[in-house]
Amino acid sequence: MEFDLVIRGGTVATASDTFRADIGIRDGRVVALAEGLEAADTIDATGRLVLPGGIEAHCHIAQESATGGMTADDYRSGSISAAFGGNSCFVPFAAQHRGMGVTETLDLYDSRAQGASVIDYGYHLIVADPTQKVLTEELPAAFARGVTSFKVFMTYDLMRIDDSQFLDILTVARENGALTMVHAENNGMIKWMSDRLLAGGHSTPRYHAVSHPALAEAEAINRAIMLARLADAPLLIVHVSTPEGAGLVHDARLAGAKIFGETCPQYFFLTRDDLDRPGMEGAKFMCSPPVRDPATQQVLWRHLQAGTFSLFSSDHAPYRFDDSGKLSKGPDATFKQIANGMPGLAVRLPLLFSEGVAAGRITLQQFVALSATNAAKIYGMHPRKGTIAVGADADIAIWDPDLTRTVRLQDQHDNMDYTPYEGRELTGWPVTVLSRGERVIDGGALVAEPGRGKFIKRDRIDLTGMPGHRAPETDPARNFGARILPEGPA
Amino acid sequence: MEFDLVIRGGTVATASDTFRADIGIRDGRVVALAEGLEAADTIDATGRLVLPGGIEAHCHIAQESATGGMTADDYRSGSISAAFGGNSCFVPFAAQHRGMGVTETLDLYDSRAQGASVIDYGYHLIVADPTQKVLTEELPAAFARGVTSFKVFMTYDLMRIDDSQFLDILTVARENGALTMVHAENNGMIKWMSDRLLAGGHSTPRYHAVSHPALAEAEAINRAIMLARLADAPLLIVHVSTPEGAGLVHDARLAGAKIFGETCPQYFFLTRDDLDRPGMEGAKFMCSPPVRDPATQQVLWRHLQAGTFSLFSSDHAPYRFDDSGKLSKGPDATFKQIANGMPGLAVRLPLLFSEGVAAGRITLQQFVALSATNAAKIYGMHPRKGTIAVGADADIAIWDPDLTRTVRLQDQHDNMDYTPYEGRELTGWPVTVLSRGERVIDGGALVAEPGRGKFIKRDRIDLTGMPGHRAPETDPARNFGARILPEGPA
Amino acid sequence: MEFDLVIRGGTVATASDTFRADIGIRDGRVVALAEGLEAADTIDATGRLVLPGGIEAHCHIAQESATGGMTADDYRSGSISAAFGGNSCFVPFAAQHRGMGVTETLDLYDSRAQGASVIDYGYHLIVADPTQKVLTEELPAAFARGVTSFKVFMTYDLMRIDDSQFLDILTVARENGALTMVHAENNGMIKWMSDRLLAGGHSTPRYHAVSHPALAEAEAINRAIMLARLADAPLLIVHVSTPEGAGLVHDARLAGAKIFGETCPQYFFLTRDDLDRPGMEGAKFMCSPPVRDPATQQVLWRHLQAGTFSLFSSDHAPYRFDDSGKLSKGPDATFKQIANGMPGLAVRLPLLFSEGVAAGRITLQQFVALSATNAAKIYGMHPRKGTIAVGADADIAIWDPDLTRTVRLQDQHDNMDYTPYEGRELTGWPVTVLSRGERVIDGGALVAEPGRGKFIKRDRIDLTGMPGHRAPETDPARNFGARILPEGPA
Amino acid sequence: MEFDLVIRGGTVATASDTFRADIGIRDGRVVALAEGLEAADTIDATGRLVLPGGIEAHCHIAQESATGGMTADDYRSGSISAAFGGNSCFVPFAAQHRGMGVTETLDLYDSRAQGASVIDYGYHLIVADPTQKVLTEELPAAFARGVTSFKVFMTYDLMRIDDSQFLDILTVARENGALTMVHAENNGMIKWMSDRLLAGGHSTPRYHAVSHPALAEAEAINRAIMLARLADAPLLIVHVSTPEGAGLVHDARLAGAKIFGETCPQYFFLTRDDLDRPGMEGAKFMCSPPVRDPATQQVLWRHLQAGTFSLFSSDHAPYRFDDSGKLSKGPDATFKQIANGMPGLAVRLPLLFSEGVAAGRITLQQFVALSATNAAKIYGMHPRKGTIAVGADADIAIWDPDLTRTVRLQDQHDNMDYTPYEGRELTGWPVTVLSRGERVIDGGALVAEPGRGKFIKRDRIDLTGMPGHRAPETDPARNFGARILPEGPA
Repeated sequence: MEFDLVIRGGTVATASDTFRADIGIRDGRVVALAEGLEAADTIDATGRLVLPGGIEAHCHIAQESATGGMTADDYRSGSISAAFGGNSCFVPFAAQHRGMGVTETLDLYDSRAQGASVIDYGYHLIVADPTQKVLTEELPAAFARGVTSFKVFMTYDLMRIDDSQFLDILTVARENGALTMVHAENNGMIKWMSDRLLAGGHSTPRYHAVSHPALAEAEAINRAIMLARLADAPLLIVHVSTPEGAGLVHDARLAGAKIFGETCPQYFFLTRDDLDRPGMEGAKFMCSPPVRDPATQQVLWRHLQAGTFSLFSSDHAPYRFDDSGKLSKGPDATFKQIANGMPGLAVRLPLLFSEGVAAGRITLQQFVALSATNAAKIYGMHPRKGTIAVGADADIAIWDPDLTRTVRLQDQHDNMDYTPYEGRELTGWPVTVLSRGERVIDGGALVAEPGRGKFIKRDRIDLTGMPGHRAPETDPARNFGARILPEGPA
Repeated sequence: MEFDLVIRGGTVATASDTFRADIGIRDGRVVALAEGLEAADTIDATGRLVLPGGIEAHCHIAQESATGGMTADDYRSGSISAAFGGNSCFVPFAAQHRGMGVTETLDLYDSRAQGASVIDYGYHLIVADPTQKVLTEELPAAFARGVTSFKVFMTYDLMRIDDSQFLDILTVARENGALTMVHAENNGMIKWMSDRLLAGGHSTPRYHAVSHPALAEAEAINRAIMLARLADAPLLIVHVSTPEGAGLVHDARLAGAKIFGETCPQYFFLTRDDLDRPGMEGAKFMCSPPVRDPATQQVLWRHLQAGTFSLFSSDHAPYRFDDSGKLSKGPDATFKQIANGMPGLAVRLPLLFSEGVAAGRITLQQFVALSATNAAKIYGMHPRKGTIAVGADADIAIWDPDLTRTVRLQDQHDNMDYTPYEGRELTGWPVTVLSRGERVIDGGALVAEPGRGKFIKRDRIDLTGMPGHRAPETDPARNFGARILPEGPA
Repeated sequence: MEFDLVIRGGTVATASDTFRADIGIRDGRVVALAEGLEAADTIDATGRLVLPGGIEAHCHIAQESATGGMTADDYRSGSISAAFGGNSCFVPFAAQHRGMGVTETLDLYDSRAQGASVIDYGYHLIVADPTQKVLTEELPAAFARGVTSFKVFMTYDLMRIDDSQFLDILTVARENGALTMVHAENNGMIKWMSDRLLAGGHSTPRYHAVSHPALAEAEAINRAIMLARLADAPLLIVHVSTPEGAGLVHDARLAGAKIFGETCPQYFFLTRDDLDRPGMEGAKFMCSPPVRDPATQQVLWRHLQAGTFSLFSSDHAPYRFDDSGKLSKGPDATFKQIANGMPGLAVRLPLLFSEGVAAGRITLQQFVALSATNAAKIYGMHPRKGTIAVGADADIAIWDPDLTRTVRLQDQHDNMDYTPYEGRELTGWPVTVLSRGERVIDGGALVAEPGRGKFIKRDRIDLTGMPGHRAPETDPARNFGARILPEGPA
Repeated sequence: MEFDLVIRGGTVATASDTFRADIGIRDGRVVALAEGLEAADTIDATGRLVLPGGIEAHCHIAQESATGGMTADDYRSGSISAAFGGNSCFVPFAAQHRGMGVTETLDLYDSRAQGASVIDYGYHLIVADPTQKVLTEELPAAFARGVTSFKVFMTYDLMRIDDSQFLDILTVARENGALTMVHAENNGMIKWMSDRLLAGGHSTPRYHAVSHPALAEAEAINRAIMLARLADAPLLIVHVSTPEGAGLVHDARLAGAKIFGETCPQYFFLTRDDLDRPGMEGAKFMCSPPVRDPATQQVLWRHLQAGTFSLFSSDHAPYRFDDSGKLSKGPDATFKQIANGMPGLAVRLPLLFSEGVAAGRITLQQFVALSATNAAKIYGMHPRKGTIAVGADADIAIWDPDLTRTVRLQDQHDNMDYTPYEGRELTGWPVTVLSRGERVIDGGALVAEPGRGKFIKRDRIDLTGMPGHRAPETDPARNFGARILPEGPA
C-alpha cells in the first residue's frame, strides 16, 4: 500500500480510544492506521499525541461589530491563528442584518472567505430579520447550500428576535434538519441594569459585568429551552457562563429536550477581578455574557466533566485595544460603548489541554470530543471531520504533551494587539497541524498558502441518542445514528 | 504487511466513530485498520457491522445459589452462550461465603474456570466476610492477582454487610485502585414486607415484586452513595431498576461523587405483569430487584440515552424451571423459597441492538460503549479489550444489522430450559465472533474449543474525567486518563 | 359590658384555633370573645361555624373587557354576589389603559364603586402604561391613597409591559411598600400557537386551552420570579394553574425570594373536557390561564395543603353567554374573539369548604387563612379585616357545615346567565354574613342597602417571616411582624 | 361576668393574630377576651406581649444517660427552669431500656414526675425493645394512657432499632393514631468515623463533630422518610441540624409524605468553633447531632421561615461539667466517653424571640406557633394547650419585648453548672408565667409549689391538611381538622 504521507510512532487518540499506530495518508484522507507503515514522506511523532485537528465552532471573523467597525480578524488572519491553535477547521458566523436577505448575506460572506482561509470552513447563519420570505424560502435555501445552523439573539437591539419569531425559526430549522443556536440573555434585565448604572455614574468596564447579571442568563436559557420544548426542536445554548444556566441545560437533556450546551475558556480562566484592572485595561476582558467568579469556575468544570457541555469554543471576537476596536469611542467611553468580545482562537485548545488533560480533570478522550468530534457531529461534518479514522479527512494536530510554554501575544498570529491570557504558563501544545493531509503548521511556522481552505457543505443534525428521541419508523439510510462516508476519495 | 486474518469490507464502529475499513489481524491483535487489506484467510463483512466483541460484566456462573444448589451454567456453557450472544469476554462472580478466605475463594473459582471457557474471563470478588485479615491482606492480594472489583450486598442474610463494613471495603478498594460494586436494596424493608405478605397468605411469585418495593432500592442506593461520598471512593451501583435510583446516580455524578450505574435488559423489556402469569410461570421472571412497569421503562431509556448508566449487563443468574432450580422447593413454594434470577447471556446485546439502535433510540456508538468499551474502561481492561484499535486484542463481533430473528430457547446455548424473551422478534444479530483473532462463533455454530479462554489480569480503575476529580499532582504515567498498550505482541 | 349584637353558641375559628365562644359586637367591631355573653340583639349560632368574613381578592367588576364591552357585574351586583358567597370584603381591579393616568383611573373607579357596594372594598391598580410620571408621581400617590397593590400583565397586547418596565414597577412598588401582582403567561408562545391554530382552522373554544400551553405559564412565572429577585421586590403570582408554576413558587419561597402564590377554584374543579362541550358551550369555561386536567388538580391540592398558595381567589370575570359577553362576535367567533373569564364570586368559598374542609383535605384553619386572613395580611388590611379578634371589624360569616345544597344560577345573585358549577352538590354553606356588625345576608336574603360598603385605605405589605428576610435594624413600630389596631372604635 | 383573674392592657398574640385585649380567667381557663374586663385580681400587662405559655417538647429529665448516671435535672428542677424560660408545659422522655416493659417504664416515670413538677407535663415514650408484646399490647396501652408519641433511635447501640423494627413501630403508631419520632443519624458512619479518629489519636471534643458528619444525618433522615412512606405513617424528624436534612423534610412534605421537622437553638446559635475551645471546654458544647457552621445556620433560618420546621425545641440534656456528668470519665476522656447534650430549657424561647422576632426574621405569629401552638397540635394537646382562646387552659406567658438582659447561669434555675449561651445579650424576656391561671413565675421569682403540675392525657395526632392527606369518608366528630373542647370547666 502506498501513502503520500505517514505519521509514525505517535500515540493516536479518538473520542473513544488511545492507541499507538502509524497513520497512512493518501489523497488527503486517512487510509490506514497500522503498525509499521512506511512512505517517502513521514512525520516522526514519537512521544507525541496525534489528535483530530480541532474544530473551532464559535468565532467572529470578518463580521461587523455591534458598536460599528469590523472584527480585527478576517478569514486569512483568523484561519492562521486557528491553525496555530491546533485547529484544522473553523465555523465563523455569517450575520444577516435587518433589511438584508439571507442569500445576500451568505454571498457576502462567501466573498469574504474565498481565497483567504488556510483551513476548511463553514458558516453559522445569524438570523436577525425572519421575514416570511426568509422563513419559507431563504432558510431552506441556506440549508441546501450546506449552512445548516442558524443563530439567534435574545438580546442586542439590532439583532434580537422576540419569542414568537424564535418559535418560527426553531420550527423551520426542525423541518429542515438544521440546528438553532441561541445567545441567551434577558434583554430587559440588561437594559434596566445598564440604564440605572449609567444614570448613577457607574460606567467603567467593571460595570459591564454588573449589567449582565447571572439571572439574565439563567432566565433567558430557561425561556429558550421552553420555546424549544414547545417547538420540539433541537437547540444549542452557546457560551453558557453560569451554574444556573449549566444546570438548566443538564436537566433539560435528561428531561428529554433536545438541548445542547456550549461553554468557553473565558468562563474557566478569567474572573470579574480582571474587569477591575486599572484604567481601561478591564475593557480587554469584556465579553457577553461576562466573565464570572471562581465558584462559577468550579461548577462549570464539574459540568464539563459530566457531559453537560458538548462544545468548548473560543467565541473569538477580536476588537483591538485601540481606536479601531475597544477604544473607538475614546478613553472615556462607557461600558455600553465598548465592543464586547475577546480573542482566543490560538489558545482555546492549549488552555483546555493544560488545565483539563494535563491537570487530570478530563481524559484525553473528553479533550478530543470537546475539541473536535462533538462539533463535527453536532454541526453535520462527522465523520469527514472531527476524528481520525479510515476514510476521514486527514485533519490532524500533533501535540507535544510535555512542552511547557508561556502564552504570548506574538504566538497568537491573529490581528490583535493583546491576549487576555498573556503570561500564563501552559503544558501541552500543538506542534504540527495538517489539513487534508497537507502540513499547515510545522516547526512553529505557517507552511500553507491562504486560500487553500475549502467551504464545507454541511449535513443535517442527527439526534439519535438524545434523551427521549426515537427515530422515525423507517430510516432508509439505516445509518444507526452514524454517518458513513462513501468509499474512495471524496 | 502480512496478516493472519483480514476482515474485509465491513463497517467498523467504535464508541466514537463509524467508518468503512478492513481489519488486519496478526498474533491475535488488531494491527491494521485500512483500505484494501489482503490475507490468505479473510472474512467478508460486506454489509455487516464490525464491532468490538461484547463484554458481559454481570453474570453468575458456577456459583452457589442463595437458596442452595448451583447455577445451571458453568464456565463451559456460560462462555458458549455468551459467545453466541456476541460477547468475547465475560466477568462472572467469585463469591466469598462467611468463614471462607478470599484467596481460598479465588482458588476455587480458578479451578471452576480453568479449561472450561471459550472466551477470556475475569472475576468480581463478592465480599461477604470482611474480617481484618481480608481487609488488610487478602483484598490487596486479590487486587495484585488481577481481581480489581469487589462486590458487596446490602440485603440477603447470608451475604449482607453493614454500613460500617461497607465503609471498610470502600476504603480498602480506594487505596488499592479497585472498584466497589453494590447490590443496593434495603434489607429491613424487604424482610418486613415479605413477613407481612407471607403472614397474609400472599406467597405466589407476583408478591416477590411487592416485597421488593422501589423505595427499597431508592433508599439503599441513596445510602450507598452517601457511604461512598464519606469514603471518597468510587462505587458502581449494579442493576438499577427504578427511576428514583437512576435519578440518584445521575445527580451524584454531577455533584462530584464517583458513582457509576449499571442497568439490565429485564428492566427494559419485562414488567410485573410477567410475574402474574398463571401457576408458577411467574417464577421464571423473578429476579432482584424485580422487574417493574412500563412507566419505569420509559424513564430508564431516557437515563440510558443521557449517560446515567455506563453498563448494560445481563445479570444472567440461571436457575432452571425444574427441581434443580426455581422449583427445588416444590410447586407450592413461597416466593421466598424460589431462586432469584433469570438467564440473558445470549440475548442482552440483540435486545439492546434491536430496541436501541435499530429503533433509533441510541446511536451505534452508544451501543458499542454499553456493550463493551465502558466495561473495559471501568473494569481495567481497556484498551486491550473493549474497542477495535491498533494494538488491541482482536476481540470482534460481526453483526448483521438487517437480520430479523425470533428469540428461541435452542439458540441460547446455555444450560437453561427457558428464556424470558421467548418469541420476541429482534432485528440485528451477531453472526461471527472472534476472540484474540480466532473464530469462536461462525456460521451459526461454535467453532472453538472450551478451555481456550484465558484469565484476564485486570488493572486499576481510572477516574480521570469523573466530575470533581482532579488527578494527583504528579502522575508518572502521563497517561492522560488513558492506558496505552506496550508495542508489539503482548 | 354592653353590646349592639351578640353571636351566641357558635364554634369560632381563626387561622390558628377553633373554640366555642360568644362574640360581642359594638360599634361595628368585635369587643368580646367570651362565654355567656348577652345582648338585646342576638344571633343563635348553635351548631354553626363562626368565621371571619371572606375576602375576595381577585375579581373583575365594572371593568372594560379586553374584547370590548364591560363586565356584567358592577359594584352593586358584584358585592351582593360576593356577600352571598360568604364574603364581607372584596378587592376588584382598577385598570389603567394606555394613555390614561393612574389618578384618573382611580377617580374613575371611585365613581363606579361609590354608593354601590354592600360590603367594604379596595382596588388593585392594573398598570398598563408605566410612564415616567406614573412611576415617579402617580404610583406613590396611589399608594398614599390606600391602593397598595399594582398588577401587571405579561401577555395581552393592550396591557402587557416588557421586562424592563416590569423591573421599573417592581422597584417603585418595593420602595413604597406596595405589592406587585402579575398575570404570568408567555405572550410569544400564545401568539404563535394561536396563529398556527387559527391558520389551521382550529378556532373552537377547546383550542383556547391548546393556545395557552402549560409551558407558557411556567416560562412566564420563572421569568417573573427572576425579575423580582433582581429587583429584590415582593411579587404575587396570580391564578397559578400548573404543577410547574406551583413548583416554581414553592422553590422560590424557600430560596429566599419574596414570592407569593394565588390559585383559583376553576383549576381544582374544571378540566379541558369542559371546553369540549358541544357547540359554543365550551366558551363558558374559557379563562386565562385555561383550565387543565385531573393530574394537575391533584398536584395543586398538594401545593394548597403544603402552603405554596397564600390565596385562593375566584378571578370572577363575568361575561354573559349572550351577545353582551361571550357571544359578542356571534356564534362563529374564534377562540380569540371570545372574552376570557368566568364567574365565581358566590361559589369560591363553598367549593373550597366542601371539597377542602368537609372532604378532609384541609383544616378549618387553612380554610380561614385562604378565605380571609392571608389576603388581609398580604394586602395590608390585617387585623382590621381577615380575622375574628378583639378590636377587629365585625366582618363575620356564619356557616352551616352540614347544609348540603346544589349550585344553581339563581343563587349566585350576580348579573350572569350561567355558572360553570351548575348542578354540583356541595356541603357547607354560609347562612349569615355580617359587615362591621351589620347583617348583610340573613335568612337567605340580602338585608343591607347598596352603598353601605366603604373604601378601605390599605397599608403596606409586611414581609417579616418571608424566607431570607431580615427587618431593618431599627423598626420604630416594634410591631414584630404584626399590626396592632389602636384601641377604641376606629 | 366574674373572673378569678384578669390580665389587663396587654397585646395578645396567637399563631394567627395580634390584638389588644384583656383576658378573663376563671377556674384555670380563659373565659373571656375582651375590652375593659375587671376583677379583684389583675395583672397589668400594658406594654407587654401576652402569649400562650411555651411548650417544651424535647427535653431529657430524670433520665439515665447513655454513658451512665442520670441527667442533672429532675422534674422539680427541670420544670422550674422551663417555667423561668416562659414555658407552662413540657414533655420529657420516658425511656424504655432493653428488657424493660413499656408499662413498667411509664410507671417508673410517673413515680419520678409525681409531686415534683410546677407545670403540666407528659411523656414521649422511647421504644428500645419492640418485642411482640410491646407492639401488640403495651404500645396500644400506652396510647390509651395518654402517651401518644413514640421515639426511636437509628444510632446508639443501647437503643437503636433496625429498619424492620422501625417499620413495625411506625405501623403500630399509625394504627393507634400515635406519632413516631426519630433520632436520625447513620450508626455505621458514626462508628466507622469514631473508630478511625480514636485509632488516629484524635479524641478531644472537637472530633465528636467530625465523627458525626452531615452525611450521617442526611442519610438517616432520607431512610427514615422512606420507611415512613412505606408504612404510610406520620413521622417527626427531631433535632434536624443540616441543610441536607432540612431539604429532605421540606421535599417530603410537598411530595405527600406525612413528615414533620424539629430543630433546636444550638444549630442556630453555636458552631463547631465552640467545640474547639481550649482543654475540655469544648465538651460543654457536645450534643448529637453536633453543632455545625455559620453557612448551615443561614439555611436553617430560611427553612424556619418557610415552614419546614414545625417545632423548635431545646433538646435539654443536662450533664454537669463535673464528674457527675461530662467529666465522669476524667479529664482525659475521649469524645466517646463524654455524655452528649447541653441545657437549654430556660433560654430556648428568649433566643428565638431575640434573634427571630426582635431581629425581624420571623413574625410574632411564627414565634407563637413554634413556641407552643404547633407542639400542642402535633402532640395532641390543642386547643387545651398551645393557644389563648376561650375555653383553653390559662397557660400564659407575659413577655417584655423591650427588656434586654444577658444570659447568666444563675438565671437558668436548673441544676446545671454552665449554660452554653453564657454572656449572650438578648432582647425580649418572659416576666410572668401562668399555668392554668395560677402564677408560677412572677417578679423574677418562682411563686408556685412543685407538685402542682399535672400529667396531660394526650390525644391522637390529626393529619388533616398534610399534603396528600384525605380524611376518611365518615368522620363522626365532624371536627374539620380541629378539636373543640367541651363546654364548661374540664
